[in-house]
Amino acid sequence: MVETLTEKKTAPAGLEDVVAGSTAVSTIFEKEAMLIYRGYTIDDLAAHASFEEIIYLLWHGKLPNQQEYDHLVGELAAHREAPAAVLEQMGNWPKGANSMDALRTAVSMLGLYDPDAGSNDHEANLRKAVRITAQVPTLVAAYDRIAKGKQPIAPRKDLNAAANFLYMLDGEAPNQLRAKVMDTAFVLHADHELNASAFACRVTVSTLSDLHSAIVTAIGTLKGPLHGGANQEVMKMLESIGDPDKADEWVSNALAGKGARVMGFGHRVYKHGDPRAFILKKMSKQLGQQIGDTRWYDISERVEEAMAQKKGIYPNVDFYSASTYHNLGLETGLFIPIFACSRVVGWVAHALEQYADNRIIRPRAEWIGETGLHYVPIGERE
Amino acid sequence: MVETLTEKKTAPAGLEDVVAGSTAVSTIFEKEAMLIYRGYTIDDLAAHASFEEIIYLLWHGKLPNQQEYDHLVGELAAHREAPAAVLEQMGNWPKGANSMDALRTAVSMLGLYDPDAGSNDHEANLRKAVRITAQVPTLVAAYDRIAKGKQPIAPRKDLNAAANFLYMLDGEAPNQLRAKVMDTAFVLHADHELNASAFACRVTVSTLSDLHSAIVTAIGTLKGPLHGGANQEVMKMLESIGDPDKADEWVSNALAGKGARVMGFGHRVYKHGDPRAFILKKMSKQLGQQIGDTRWYDISERVEEAMAQKKGIYPNVDFYSASTYHNLGLETGLFIPIFACSRVVGWVAHALEQYADNRIIRPRAEWIGETGLHYVPIGERE
Repeated sequence: MVETLTEKKTAPAGLEDVVAGSTAVSTIFEKEAMLIYRGYTIDDLAAHASFEEIIYLLWHGKLPNQQEYDHLVGELAAHREAPAAVLEQMGNWPKGANSMDALRTAVSMLGLYDPDAGSNDHEANLRKAVRITAQVPTLVAAYDRIAKGKQPIAPRKDLNAAANFLYMLDGEAPNQLRAKVMDTAFVLHADHELNASAFACRVTVSTLSDLHSAIVTAIGTLKGPLHGGANQEVMKMLESIGDPDKADEWVSNALAGKGARVMGFGHRVYKHGDPRAFILKKMSKQLGQQIGDTRWYDISERVEEAMAQKKGIYPNVDFYSASTYHNLGLETGLFIPIFACSRVVGWVAHALEQYADNRIIRPRAEWIGETGLHYVPIGERE
Repeated sequence: MVETLTEKKTAPAGLEDVVAGSTAVSTIFEKEAMLIYRGYTIDDLAAHASFEEIIYLLWHGKLPNQQEYDHLVGELAAHREAPAAVLEQMGNWPKGANSMDALRTAVSMLGLYDPDAGSNDHEANLRKAVRITAQVPTLVAAYDRIAKGKQPIAPRKDLNAAANFLYMLDGEAPNQLRAKVMDTAFVLHADHELNASAFACRVTVSTLSDLHSAIVTAIGTLKGPLHGGANQEVMKMLESIGDPDKADEWVSNALAGKGARVMGFGHRVYKHGDPRAFILKKMSKQLGQQIGDTRWYDISERVEEAMAQKKGIYPNVDFYSASTYHNLGLETGLFIPIFACSRVVGWVAHALEQYADNRIIRPRAEWIGETGLHYVPIGERE
């Protein structure tokens, strides 16, 4: 029992440090700067596991054996095609629409066509989860092409999720390093405890609404610049710096309040560095070397050094994902939808966990408004 | 400061009684069983204010003077038509789709066509709020007709929101009592402090995502049977009782665990009765008398008596809204979308308040999973 809560003291703004529930999906050990999925450290998983193994792990609580793995991979590949009616409607949407608005609408529309709409049974939810997870990358790639006046490219069943996603963007299957980097980026972004989108997703589930509603909630929540939009802001910063030799001065100016803010540093939970940043940093460098352009990596590294020296704070996951994605050849406008392609797995895991042991999430609010007012006729009002 | 929170004790399940933030939009005085909008009691407002006055009150914090009122009413009427492209696409959706899935998708789609998409400025948000609030009833009525194979009916500018909504369902402007009851029902449902959908809406806003995303989140959250879906369940219960004389026995059986649950009673916050229920009860009776069929009211009253006698608990807002809506000639499948037609006003008010003083809502979770696991190759797994 937490007496102070029932005495209705107000929780810290943004529920900072408030333990709003329990989970066995993922957690963060702050002091150790460790992210854990289902008992495994993110370092261990990023080094060894494929994104498809992570999907199984997060949904089912254990790493799959060969048979379980093959079954899931087959199911995901078999459900990659989005309903033709959805793609057709997307073809009519305004070309300049925001990519996350398009994804939110498209996933909501999937709910209209899902054969299991109307059932919240665990087995139905798992079937819906496979279809949603398999089709989010398809919808992202399709709208990216539609917005450019091109035809969507049908997914391939013989590629894994990461390679197929890159393939659907431009019709070229990626080389080994690009495929591996995309796969690892998906592994790193798949879940992150009660982040805002996962929490919002659980609030939606808590009314016993359906899985599509919950994922749509999460997509709309991820969209914000304080959440999924942060890596996009990092890329804009790197572009505005433009040259590694200008990084130190740019950071000094930013910290002095002159010009834009430094993006991609610090984290409400990680005070001692974000484990995902180290892994992404290595990949950003490798990719830069392979494509013969280390400029974005170099600028990033110099910004990191300047921030460590001047402020003693460390990059978060968004910082090196920006140059990594850029070095993968991905446009900045795709960064948040790519986040969604991976994080959808965590949202599903949180939704399944919430359905399994649910209580409606309905907090209270401190009243800071007036009381005791009385209606007066409209003619007597100021 | 709430020390226990920073010591990371887990909050009660569902954040029950946790004060998750502050608001000046609406509040509930539990002991007095009072609901307050911006300082006015719901009884005062339901007796005197129109839904359009409530919209102004909730968004702007005061009742409008004549000029402000006329301006808002004119803006709402002028923006009732949904974009033709949205209605056209709705015409292609599967006829059997859930009405809330359709509304969620349609409102998400409005975001693709909104001229202010991309701006979170207060003035842009108010313009978006007018369009969304004006068009939600249009979309609800349109899909209701589309699902029945009929053409949507264009909105009328000369009617208020409540009368126009009823008009768009069947092409007949409602008589005075029906219009008044619909208007008062909209007043009663417009806001309710940090209910699950308003809270989810605020979590979405807190990442600085956009207003359409926030409203889409709220729609998906309202959909659940533990929230907006409850009045639908009440109606099904009344239909299954079927006869006032069977109510007492039905309740006894239900309370003994035989058969279905009694719906529409008790509330996490109101322990001493829901003020909205009294107002709806009166309207349900009046309407029943006008249409010459008080059966649903009579069954409801007998269930209320039985519950008071056997359990000492009182009806909540959902209980008498069921028979009220039924007596208005509204189908049960419309009950949740109708709730959204009104509650969208409160969602907007909460969103505006969150934008004005924002901190990302990102709580923590207690870890109940394993730790210290190590990746093993797939061939070695059980």
